[in-house]
Amino acid sequence: MVLLPMRSFSIGVDLGGTNLRVAAVTPQGERLDHISLPTRVAAGPQAVLDDMAGAIRQLIQKLPGTLLGIGVGSPGPIELPLGLLHHLPNFPGFDGVNLRIELERRLDRPVQVGHDAALAAYGECLLGAGRAHSVESLVMYTLGTGVGCGVVLDGRIWNGMRGAAGESGHGPIIPDGVPCPCGARGCLEMYASATSIVRRAHELGLAPEGNGSAPLTASAIAQRATTGDPRALQIFDEVGYALGLSLAHLVNALDLPLYVIGGGAAAAWPLFAPRMFSTLREGSYVYRLSMPRDPGVFEPGKTHVAPARLGSDAGILGAALLPVAARSALHA
Amino acid sequence: MVLLPMRSFSIGVDLGGTNLRVAAVTPQGERLDHISLPTRVAAGPQAVLDDMAGAIRQLIQKLPGTLLGIGVGSPGPIELPLGLLHHLPNFPGFDGVNLRIELERRLDRPVQVGHDAALAAYGECLLGAGRAHSVESLVMYTLGTGVGCGVVLDGRIWNGMRGAAGESGHGPIIPDGVPCPCGARGCLEMYASATSIVRRAHELGLAPEGNGSAPLTASAIAQRATTGDPRALQIFDEVGYALGLSLAHLVNALDLPLYVIGGGAAAAWPLFAPRMFSTLREGSYVYRLSMPRDPGVFEPGKTHVAPARLGSDAGILGAALLPVAARSALHA
Repeated sequence: MVLLPMRSFSIGVDLGGTNLRVAAVTPQGERLDHISLPTRVAAGPQAVLDDMAGAIRQLIQKLPGTLLGIGVGSPGPIELPLGLLHHLPNFPGFDGVNLRIELERRLDRPVQVGHDAALAAYGECLLGAGRAHSVESLVMYTLGTGVGCGVVLDGRIWNGMRGAAGESGHGPIIPDGVPCPCGARGCLEMYASATSIVRRAHELGLAPEGNGSAPLTASAIAQRATTGDPRALQIFDEVGYALGLSLAHLVNALDLPLYVIGGGAAAAWPLFAPRMFSTLREGSYVYRLSMPRDPGVFEPGKTHVAPARLGSDAGILGAALLPVAARSALHA
Repeated sequence: MVLLPMRSFSIGVDLGGTNLRVAAVTPQGERLDHISLPTRVAAGPQAVLDDMAGAIRQLIQKLPGTLLGIGVGSPGPIELPLGLLHHLPNFPGFDGVNLRIELERRLDRPVQVGHDAALAAYGECLLGAGRAHSVESLVMYTLGTGVGCGVVLDGRIWNGMRGAAGESGHGPIIPDGVPCPCGARGCLEMYASATSIVRRAHELGLAPEGNGSAPLTASAIAQRATTGDPRALQIFDEVGYALGLSLAHLVNALDLPLYVIGGGAAAAWPLFAPRMFSTLREGSYVYRLSMPRDPGVFEPGKTHVAPARLGSDAGILGAALLPVAARSALHA
């Protein structure tokens, strides 16, 4: 007979457009168990909420330790701390659903909700790049289908007035630039997301390799850049330029010790980082005054831009730690 | 015989390039007394510090109430919370002076120091536009010789890692735009400061009126705009465009309830506000989701941009309240 150790844990949930992931995590960030399900978006919000509550209950019943809390990360726009969903692009029919209240009703327990990009930043702060650099404040960009952004100040997520903070993916870095679905022009997301990398490849006539049947992806374009394709290199140079301008705005406004770049497209770091750093140096005198001698080497008291460390787990770990850290603050 | 009422007060100091102002202020923001002296920059830092300490002592000795603390606002760059001055543009020879320690040594009392633009934001938050709108978080731009910027989050100044937060005057809003003395191009300050308004007037060939002997000032150009001069109107339209872009970045990053425009050039509000609001609407979907029906009418839970209310007193009031609020926090 195997005795499971009695360890306190919290539950983190990552509500994605494709997968619904639920994990039990210790306060130290160790994952004890997890469940992953397809997100049944077409079945509607009640079905997805039932699936979520069922998976959470299953983990709670299975694990012998004390449950410290439940944290849920959702794509935005989500009104916080209320928990109300507003027109999520990949969740038709979910508008007006109160994620927090619906889950609390099903589970009879308090639930905390957050914006997925903010929770990824929170996870990186507590367990990833932030812990590695011993800092309590950072901004994290997540380069994926769009460009998410999360702000952590003094160890707490900064959600803003209604949860809309961290929308720097829609900062107008190039006035009169590429039109964005958000209605503005020249948003960071139009230059630094995986989607934009593919769009630029089409604009520059970069054809898929081989028989041409496989669609062009951001990672395939990165692969082409590493073999020296000048158009692919140009695309990542543009990614770096856009990130450098956006960083210049944030460095000047907030003077934080750390800015983290995560998400799938961040794997192309060696391709975009040189232009990102040169643009940031040119565009921000605050950065010039406080940059480390080598951008890759940490110096206390300096301004750093670094790749994320937790990969796609940052958000679910941040969600799980949300109720734990709030609890720690209460008992401090 | 007149009996002065026994009222607790704190001392606020505003170290300007021309004037050194010292005021005794009640915790409610009422000014009990003040001293204004020319700043003897040419006499060097020790002379200015002696003048400052002398004026502070004079007020303390004159007033019968309890002294709650001393707060000093300085132009940047100033390293905070340390209090160390770094190459202040209008203070040659002051580099490396520790304003806080030098004053504490002279006065034998604790002194708190802050960045003047941040203290103006703090003053506006506690006693001006922030109080009028019942908010605890705001960003304030001060349009003067340069463009200062201060960030107040949840009732506390956000200084950043070393006091360099709030340098959004040097945010690169127009990539490859007008070169700025800071070394970057297209900074907000190059379009929205009083200095830039005058520069644009010269570029556009706007000659001084009358016999031409009086130099062109920002307020004279505003006067010309109010009489319908198309070039003068264009200049303030450009000010509004620049402010709108900068606001779009901050609204998207921070989702605050209030952004305040102060400083001398803010008097031209009717001239730049229309373009500022239209640019902000176009450039920030977060603003579009949360803008009030009428930008001039306050609605709780919405995003507001409003003129400052305290005029040139914002900074000295914020300096005086710095030690008081810190004290309140300690005793909460």
